[in-house]
Parts: sequence; structure tokens; C-alpha cells
Amino acid sequence: MTAPQIIRDFRRPPAELLAELAGYGVATVHEAYGRRGLLSPEIRPVVAGRRVCGPAVTSLNTAGDNLMVHAAVELCRPGDVLVIATTAPSAHGMVGDLLCTQARARGIATLIIDAGVRDVAGLREMDFPVWAKVISAQGTTKEHGGSVNLPVVCAGRTVHPGDAVVADDDGVVVVAAADVAAVVAAAAARESREAVLRERYAAGESSLDVSSLRPVLDRLGARYVDGG
Amino acid sequence: MTAPQIIRDFRRPPAELLAELAGYGVATVHEAYGRRGLLSPEIRPVVAGRRVCGPAVTSLNTAGDNLMVHAAVELCRPGDVLVIATTAPSAHGMVGDLLCTQARARGIATLIIDAGVRDVAGLREMDFPVWAKVISAQGTTKEHGGSVNLPVVCAGRTVHPGDAVVADDDGVVVVAAADVAAVVAAAAARESREAVLRERYAAGESSLDVSSLRPVLDRLGARYVDGG
Amino acid sequence: MTAPQIIRDFRRPPAELLAELAGYGVATVHEAYGRRGLLSPEIRPVVAGRRVCGPAVTSLNTAGDNLMVHAAVELCRPGDVLVIATTAPSAHGMVGDLLCTQARARGIATLIIDAGVRDVAGLREMDFPVWAKVISAQGTTKEHGGSVNLPVVCAGRTVHPGDAVVADDDGVVVVAAADVAAVVAAAAARESREAVLRERYAAGESSLDVSSLRPVLDRLGARYVDGG
Amino acid sequence: MTAPQIIRDFRRPPAELLAELAGYGVATVHEAYGRRGLLSPEIRPVVAGRRVCGPAVTSLNTAGDNLMVHAAVELCRPGDVLVIATTAPSAHGMVGDLLCTQARARGIATLIIDAGVRDVAGLREMDFPVWAKVISAQGTTKEHGGSVNLPVVCAGRTVHPGDAVVADDDGVVVVAAADVAAVVAAAAARESREAVLRERYAAGESSLDVSSLRPVLDRLGARYVDGG
Amino acid sequence: MTAPQIIRDFRRPPAELLAELAGYGVATVHEAYGRRGLLSPEIRPVVAGRRVCGPAVTSLNTAGDNLMVHAAVELCRPGDVLVIATTAPSAHGMVGDLLCTQARARGIATLIIDAGVRDVAGLREMDFPVWAKVISAQGTTKEHGGSVNLPVVCAGRTVHPGDAVVADDDGVVVVAAADVAAVVAAAAARESREAVLRERYAAGESSLDVSSLRPVLDRLGARYVDGG
Amino acid sequence: MTAPQIIRDFRRPPAELLAELAGYGVATVHEAYGRRGLLSPEIRPVVAGRRVCGPAVTSLNTAGDNLMVHAAVELCRPGDVLVIATTAPSAHGMVGDLLCTQARARGIATLIIDAGVRDVAGLREMDFPVWAKVISAQGTTKEHGGSVNLPVVCAGRTVHPGDAVVADDDGVVVVAAADVAAVVAAAAARESREAVLRERYAAGESSLDVSSLRPVLDRLGARYVDGG
Repeated sequence: MTAPQIIRDFRRPPAELLAELAGYGVATVHEAYGRRGLLSPEIRPVVAGRRVCGPAVTSLNTAGDNLMVHAAVELCRPGDVLVIATTAPSAHGMVGDLLCTQARARGIATLIIDAGVRDVAGLREMDFPVWAKVISAQGTTKEHGGSVNLPVVCAGRTVHPGDAVVADDDGVVVVAAADVAAVVAAAAARESREAVLRERYAAGESSLDVSSLRPVLDRLGARYVDGG
Repeated sequence: MTAPQIIRDFRRPPAELLAELAGYGVATVHEAYGRRGLLSPEIRPVVAGRRVCGPAVTSLNTAGDNLMVHAAVELCRPGDVLVIATTAPSAHGMVGDLLCTQARARGIATLIIDAGVRDVAGLREMDFPVWAKVISAQGTTKEHGGSVNLPVVCAGRTVHPGDAVVADDDGVVVVAAADVAAVVAAAAARESREAVLRERYAAGESSLDVSSLRPVLDRLGARYVDGG
Repeated sequence: MTAPQIIRDFRRPPAELLAELAGYGVATVHEAYGRRGLLSPEIRPVVAGRRVCGPAVTSLNTAGDNLMVHAAVELCRPGDVLVIATTAPSAHGMVGDLLCTQARARGIATLIIDAGVRDVAGLREMDFPVWAKVISAQGTTKEHGGSVNLPVVCAGRTVHPGDAVVADDDGVVVVAAADVAAVVAAAAARESREAVLRERYAAGESSLDVSSLRPVLDRLGARYVDGG
Repeated sequence: MTAPQIIRDFRRPPAELLAELAGYGVATVHEAYGRRGLLSPEIRPVVAGRRVCGPAVTSLNTAGDNLMVHAAVELCRPGDVLVIATTAPSAHGMVGDLLCTQARARGIATLIIDAGVRDVAGLREMDFPVWAKVISAQGTTKEHGGSVNLPVVCAGRTVHPGDAVVADDDGVVVVAAADVAAVVAAAAARESREAVLRERYAAGESSLDVSSLRPVLDRLGARYVDGG
Repeated sequence: MTAPQIIRDFRRPPAELLAELAGYGVATVHEAYGRRGLLSPEIRPVVAGRRVCGPAVTSLNTAGDNLMVHAAVELCRPGDVLVIATTAPSAHGMVGDLLCTQARARGIATLIIDAGVRDVAGLREMDFPVWAKVISAQGTTKEHGGSVNLPVVCAGRTVHPGDAVVADDDGVVVVAAADVAAVVAAAAARESREAVLRERYAAGESSLDVSSLRPVLDRLGARYVDGG
Repeated sequence: MTAPQIIRDFRRPPAELLAELAGYGVATVHEAYGRRGLLSPEIRPVVAGRRVCGPAVTSLNTAGDNLMVHAAVELCRPGDVLVIATTAPSAHGMVGDLLCTQARARGIATLIIDAGVRDVAGLREMDFPVWAKVISAQGTTKEHGGSVNLPVVCAGRTVHPGDAVVADDDGVVVVAAADVAAVVAAAAARESREAVLRERYAAGESSLDVSSLRPVLDRLGARYVDGG
């Protein structure tokens, strides 16, 4: 294995932009981003009903080992989201209540783990929400290399340090730092449009009319037939 | 792809029968129906603790597209259960809060989705329970054909429009319209029997006696051995 | 199939030891046991937020049949944990509210099921927590052989009758009867150490210092680089 | 369980049509049928390099039991394809060399099994190709009910007795009896078109030109950029 | 982790018995053994068309590490079958051509790996058949503990050193050393019976008659109906 | 969806380097690269026994659509490896014999598909080896956007255009263009070392001696015990 490379710092998106992005859910951000950046739906919240947004710190770990999570936690700033990837598919419980205690003390917003988490009863008590692929008590070593703040693949998507991460009950989406401003604008526009649609639907209108889908059905040659 | 076929209407089982069926859970109905009609356990409730029963409206969609859900919603009547299938396995978020707002405005009882759902925080707020295979923010197109109210295969079972659907924390079961009356009767009988059993078990009796399982063990040649 | 063999009794670990073991969660016990005994993370709690500990009664069942669960329940004592395995992978709902009513009447602590469970709404009402691989209403027969209180493989681990079972939100771990005393001692030591660590982390220290991981990074040749 | 229903006979598509259909592979038939009828890709050939076509005989079995396969084999005619479904997901080896010896003696073309097969070394020696979801030696009982020649769901698709089944290295597709003539015509047309395309592609033309995809790219706003 | 325990030797079943057992395939042995001992069908042969039989040497490895495979190879005798398990689910390529060269030099019959294998092109050239869960080039460390010749769980079954292992295209079955003689006798009897059945089926008889299944259908209340 | 971006060209690694790299298998390259770059083992060869090496052309496609494969094929040069990714998990048959005819006419070395392939009988006849996740006849549309020659995530790894791809029976590994020279050197050194090891193992030596593993066992406190 090559020697671990640990990048101390990187550019984070402006705090105001992240604050604005935090106002939108994962589905809206994913749409506003041209349907990009969504992590695999295998990644689920351990505590339901939360929404978190922050800049990514990335940690690549040898499968079954969490040394580079420890190295990464130290480099996180308040509000950061620690994104944890592995060199090979892993279901180990890479993070537990001790690491989360440390993470909370440093003001880390959340951890996104493409592997397992443990001590989930403790995490619920601490009210520290994390997103993970599996819950497992299986322990890891702290001996093997990896990297901190190099780009990683987490749950099927490339994540760069400084990318904006949004996580909620729908899963996790990642927006490249350079695209955050545009995505915020697009998300705002989308929510305005959807607020109008929501009202019209609540009032009983059909999306076939509201979204002009009848011509699409016609173009496909749809035939309505009386049944029954 | 062949042109979409949309059947406007079909016979629903009598409302009184459905009301009676709604009194029984999925496990009881499945048993009362000769252990038929159960959808794959992959289909799970997004909101726990609910039971829903209604006649099926069926929607077949091209994988990754939800045009035929929009076409189906318009044809639903209050109390209907919209059953959503795809032409190929799909984990897309086919339904979100806008479609559910529309569904609720029309009085639709629930949606059963052999694919993904999104905006689940919103759905919990609206208190609109749905059953789905996965939670995913992944968006769909609204461009491709399919059908409404033709028979579909949803999560491993054939569903016809007008079949009675029961969904609860145990999953989803589908009863052919013609069999609803018989299933209601069988479910009632089963529940009476089970109420007696429940009392006897609570009082400390063994199912080996109550259900006459000792002779079965004997017939298999079971040998009891003292251990320890 | 060979004739069912049913061992009436076996040695249980001393009640005081089990009471002590019950004070520790699955992750701690798994670590204290040298990272052994953990069942596959597929086994999940049906009701969250509980911790259960007791001696194993083992039941091996023909896939799709639960006769040997009935035979096993009768032999359980108050506080026992009934561990249910199958001869081939199964997703049937092997246990429901009737069996759980019986189990509760006999004081059984919980059921660990390497298959499915049903009537989960009823189980939540009864407040009877169980751990299972899947929730499914699919019924079983009561006709086929198996064994009670012979060693079984449940979710990837061998379980002997009288082994101590601990189950919580992290999953399930099994400790051989002969090892319980040693594991209790090791768990106590571990918790003491972790209490200290927790305080130091909460106060802002880094695990790189507290757990002496900086020398490990050095040995791996880790290079710190300024980024940004 | 309701009593087994066994339908002795049904209408098969004309032999000439099936002979014509046998000239086309699964991918072509699936396309010619409007992308319908494809079984889940989990169903794989046990012996590679074969193509089989015939009318479906359908057999529904209790999971873990193959009694209704035995009942179905007797009713098959030479050239039939026996489609084997189960009441719940199953990985049992439902069919082995004895059943295949019987099947071959009756001239059955092949078996499509939404479960497991065993004795595959023997099947290769007999040169009897079957399609199945898994290879497993796990045995079944011969005691439980089901049906023969009622519609079944096999690997995610409804199959009626008399439907035409085509199986090859790409998987399995099912065509409703009433649609076979139209599908044969569409498949023939498709193959003619594809023969021309194949020649043009072999000669170095691009599908962007041959299939008029450049306007599609334009409509999507595709931008070509020089790299490197 | 507890210190590795390595048992140098154990009793192997008599060579003559193993030679007799080698005459029967996995499906026959599994049946003759009362349908016990079958490993999960996930374990597949890397080279098709072989049958291997020998006494088990067992090796338990930390997931992602193969040190205890190296320790086990040294203790194998000609004809042994090395059974490789891991402490947690693993898809690493635990064995490649170097270990297989060593294994072959010592006369090891085969390796059964509840994880991954690599260099499969080389293994095919060497004509050294192995059975594994997955093919993966992912490398392992050689640093972590485990055990040799203690009982292990491999692919869902407990394997003791000295158990007889049979592997072929149907998968892998394990027979306890004490049961080998009885299983050989039962397998011989089964094959005799099956040879007769095979002839009768080849001659066109139905298993409904040959295996007396018509009374079973009658008992279930089967109704034959003319169709079509 | 954002407009498709299509990068016409990029730097390929020197042909001599790729020729040298082609001399090593996937397992060796993966090791020589510090255990990096391996695609998920889900990606399997459709035709066994081949090894292919070339520079990556990358194509990102909307799940269920293959328009950007058509756009990518046109930009490939002889010897290129076309790497096909999707915006969401897909099991569609994205490539068949027509696209492969085109690919072969342009001298493309192979296709690596993080989705499905069809017409595999035809591909075997053409002797055009491809690597894919699944075999499925399920067709795609040619209507949706994506990109060509932007970085993609394929089977869990980021692939940049111009990366070197090696594929054989063990799977697929990707080496960044800048690292190819170093990896070739490391692979050569590794093969020399392994040739020596192979001879020593063939002569009966143990890896415990040859690879100095006895001290590792000592350090772990391994205890050798006489058994049986």
C-alpha cells in the first residue's frame, strides 16, 4: 500500500451559501443539480427526521480499518461533514460512540459512512445523527493506510473535499463546490414553482393539465378505453 | 413500445366488503386467502403503524419514468389504492410530495410502489402513508408509455384493477375481487379461533397441546432426551 | 430427514453472571470477547431501543416450517432467549403474535429469528421485542422435523444451548457459556477505559494522541500536506 | 391452503408459428413485443449456447416442495416448456436429473425454474438445458399443494399456459398466445432492418448517422468540446 | 483479538470410507445425510465439471487477511480439503496462484473459500479447482489472528476438522466424521434406488405412479379440470 | 438535466507503456498500484479467458438509455476501452451486437459496462469480449443526456478518460494515466519476485518460511497445540 497522504486543508464554499443550501432537502437539491450527485440509496439515516448540510472532509480507509477516520476528525472544522469511504466493500462498524463524541466536541455536523456504524443506541441518546450503509457491531483495526482529503468514491459518487453535502431522510446528495451558488439559485426557483403546484394539486387539479402531460400522452398514442 | 392503454374504469368490490376486510391485518388476510396474494417483503411501509384497505388502480410504468402514475391518479376515486409497477426493476423515486398532494386531494387511500419514493419527510408531515421498495431521491422522466388499469405484476404478484389491497406493518396482500367475500368470512372465522388460542396461550398452555402437535412429533419419530 | 432430536435441558450460565453481562451492549460484549460471536447484521430488532440478555435455547427448523419452534417454546424457562435457525435460507414469517403470546406467558426474554417474523404491529403493542432477518406475513407449516437444543448455525454463527445471548440496537452477539465470566470481566474493564476516553474526547482531545495513533501514521509513512 | 387445481389442457399456439418464433433470439423477441414479457435476468441458462422455444405449461408450487412439478410433467406434450413458480421466494433445488429424465422421455423442450436446480453435472451429460435462478442441492418435499396450468408469476412476469416461451443465453421472454403471430412478423421485420444496420456498422458507419441520433443530441443541447 | 490457536492434527475418517464417499455427488450425499451439511449455494466452483472429496482442515481468518490460510496449508496432508472461513463477511481475494501452487505441492485436494479467489486464469491453467463465493483481485494482509483446526462456520454450516467434504458442480456438502460410514451406506442405497427410477422414467413412466404421488394429490383434494 | 458535454479528445498514455502493462494480469496490476483502482467484482467477463488493456474513453448515460454510448463510440480510436457508467443503478442491456459490430469496426478493444449487456451469443460468435454487471435483454431508449469523456464512477471507482484499463478473468482495474509507468515497473518487479516464490512453493517450501510469517504468528501469540 502506498503511504497515507493527508491534506490538511482545502477551500470550503462560503458559509452563507451553505446556509442557504441547508434550506433545501436532498430531493430538491438533486433536481436543482441536474439530477447529479446522489449517493446510492443504500446510505440511510440512523436517526430519522434530520437535515444536515456542510462541506465535505473526505477519508479513505482500508476495508476493516478506521485509522484514517481518526486522522480526518482532527482536521475537521465546526460544521464539516466527514465522508468515510473504504478501499473495498465493507460492512464493519467503522464508527461508534467514542468517535462520535470526538466528532461532536469538534462541532462536526455529521458523518456519512459507506460502511457500518455501531453504538446506535448511544448515538440516538447523544442526538448525533449519522448516515450509514449498515448497522454492525463488527470492530475495525487502526493500523492501515488510506488518505484524508483526496477525492473518494462514496456510495457510487466521487466526493472532493469542500464539496457541499446535504443529508436528510431521502438520503445524501453531494454538490461540487463550484456549483453550489448555481444549485442554490435553481433550488430556490424550483421550490417557488413547486409551492404553486402544491397549491393547485391540493385544490384538486391534475398534473396532466398543470404539467402539460396530456400532449405527451397523445404523442405516445395513448388510447383511453371505458372499462368495467 | 406499444401505445399506452388507459382503462377508465372497472368494477370495485362492494364498499361494505372492503370496510369489513379493512378490519383484518395482512397476516390474517393472507392466511384466510389460502396463503395467496402476498407481495414480496421488499415492499415496506414508509410510515409505521398504519393499516389501509381499498380497491386497486394499477399503473405500469417504463422503468425510470412516472408518466403513467400521473395518468392513473386522475382516474382514482376516493378510497382507491394506486398500485405502481415498472417494466423493468427500478429503484427510482417515482413518487414524491407533489404526487402525494394530488393523491390526497383525490382521496386516494395509499400508493403501493414497486420502486422508490422520495420526500419522505414531507410525506410523514402530511401523514400520508405509502408502501415502497426503497427510499430514493432519484428523479424520473414523464415521457414514456405504459398502461393504466391493465393487470400488472407488482413485487412478484399479479394485481388486477379492482382487486382488494390490504397494507400494514407486515407488508401488502392482494385479494381478487371475486374472492373478497369469502376471504372476509374466512378471516372472521380465523380471528375468532385465534382469540381463543391467544387466551389459552396467555394462560400458559402449550401449542403442542392446543394445536395437537404432539402426534405430529410422534409421527416424525421425535426423541426427547435429557441433557445437561 | 432424520428423526427430530429434542434435548430437554442443558446447563445455563449462573444467573448472576448473566445479570452482569446484561449491563453491557452488543458492541462492548463483542469487543470483550475478542471480536467473536457476532451474528450477521442482517438480524435487526423489530422494536428499537431495547437490550435483552439470556441463555440460548436453540431450535432448528425445516425451511418454511415452524414445528420445532413450538417444541422449543415448551422447554424454555423464564429469561431464556429462543434462537431460531432453519435448514436452508428462509424468509418465511416463522413467528407471529400467537407464538409470542405463548413465549411471553413462559417468561421468554426474546426470540432471535434467522428468518421472518409477522404480526409486528401486535408485537409492538405487546411490547415484546424480537430480532429477525425480515418482516413477512408468509405463513409456515407445522409438519417437518428439525431439532431442539442441538448446536445450530444462526445468521453465520454457531450457537449452543446455554450460550449467553445479548441483543440490542446494534444486533446480536453470542458468548459460549464457559466464556461468560471472562467476557463480563473484560467488558467491565473496557467500559472503565472507555468512560475515561469519552471524557477526554468530550473535552476536545484527539484519538491520535489519546490512543497513540500518531506513531502508527508515522510507521506507515504518512505525509501531511497543506492544501487549499 | 386451498385444494390444488390441475387444468389438463389448454390451447397451444400453432406449431408453425412457434417454429417461426424459434428462429429469433430473446432480445429480438423482447423488442418485437414492445419490450414486454422479459423474465428477471436472475434466471440464467445452466447450459450455455442453446435456444429453446415452446408453449408454456405452468406449475405453481409451495416454496420448498415440488409435488406440482410432478403433476405438471405428466400433462406436458412434446415441445412444451414447463414454467415452474413458487408461492414464496425459494432457492431449493426443485428439479434434478430424475425429473429431467422424465421430462426428456416426454419430449419436454426445457424447464424454466424460478428457484434452484441440482444434478447439473448430470444435466450437462444428458444435454438437457434448463434455465434457473440458482444451482443448489437443497432437496424439496413432495407433499404440498399448488396448481397446474393456472396463470403464475415467474421471475416477475405473469405466464399463462399456452404462452410462447423463448429462452437463450440472454434469458427468457414470454409472449401471450394471441400475440405470437404479430411478434413473429415484427421480429422478422426487425431482423431485416438489423441485418442492414449490421453491414453498415461493419463498414465503419456511425449509429449517430445511421439511426439519426445527431438531431437528438442537438435537441438536448449537446456541446462538443476539444479536450486534451 | 485473542491469540491464534493452531491445532496441529486431528483424526481423519478412514481413507477407504472417503474413497467410497467420493463416488457420490453432492446432491446424493446431502440426501443420504438427511438433508444436512449443505453449504450456502453462494459457494460455486471456479472450474466446472470436477468432483472432489477429502477431510476438512479448517482455517478461520480475520476478514481481509489470510495469515491463517498460510498457517493451515503447512498442516495439510495429501488429499485434505482446506476450508477457509472469515470472522466477518468478506469478498477479498484471499487465495491466488501462489497459495494454490503451495497447496498443490502438498497434495491438497481443493480449497473451499467463504470469500473471494483471484488469479483464476492461472488456476484454470494449473487445473487446480477451487470453490469460492466470489472472484476478486482484491488483496489481503498477512497480519491478523484467527485459528487453524477449530470448528468454523463456512457459508452457513459448522465445519469441524476431519469432517468429510464433497464438492462438485452442485456446490459443497460437509459430513461429520462420525457419520461418514452411515452416509456412504445410505448414498449407495439411494443410488441403487435412483438407477431403477431413472430407467423407469426413461421408459416413459410417471413419477406420480412410480413414487406413489397420486394418493398425496388425492389427500390434498386435488381437482383435475379439462381446459382449453 | 444539464446539456450533454462531449469531450472530443484527451491524452492517452504512450502506446509502449500500455503494451507493457498488457503483459500483466488484473491481480498483479492491482497490487503493483498499491491495491488501488479495482472495480467492484460485480463486473464479470462475458467471455472467459481473455485479457485486454487500453486507454479509457468514458461515457455517462441516463439509467435506461444508451445515447451517450453511441456518441462515445464515434470518438474512440483503435485499442481504446469504452467505459460505460449510468446516472443511477441500472440492469438494462445497454449494449448488444449492433453496438459491438460498430465497436469492432472502429478497433475498440472492449467495453466495460456498469449495467447489462445482451446478444451475448452473438458476441461470443464475433469473439468480442466485454465485461458487464449483468446479462439482460432489456432494451434502452436513445433519448437522454449524459456525457462523454468526463470523469465517471464505474462500479465504485472513478475513471478519467485516458486512464489505463486492464480486464481479465479476475475483473477490471483502472490505473491513472500519470501512474502507468510506475505501475508497469512495480508489476515487473512483482512478477520477478513471484516467479521465484512460485518455484520455491512448487518445490515444497512453506510461505511461513519464505515470506517470514512465523515471526508474525509469534508476535500475535499463536499457540500450536497437538490435537486428535
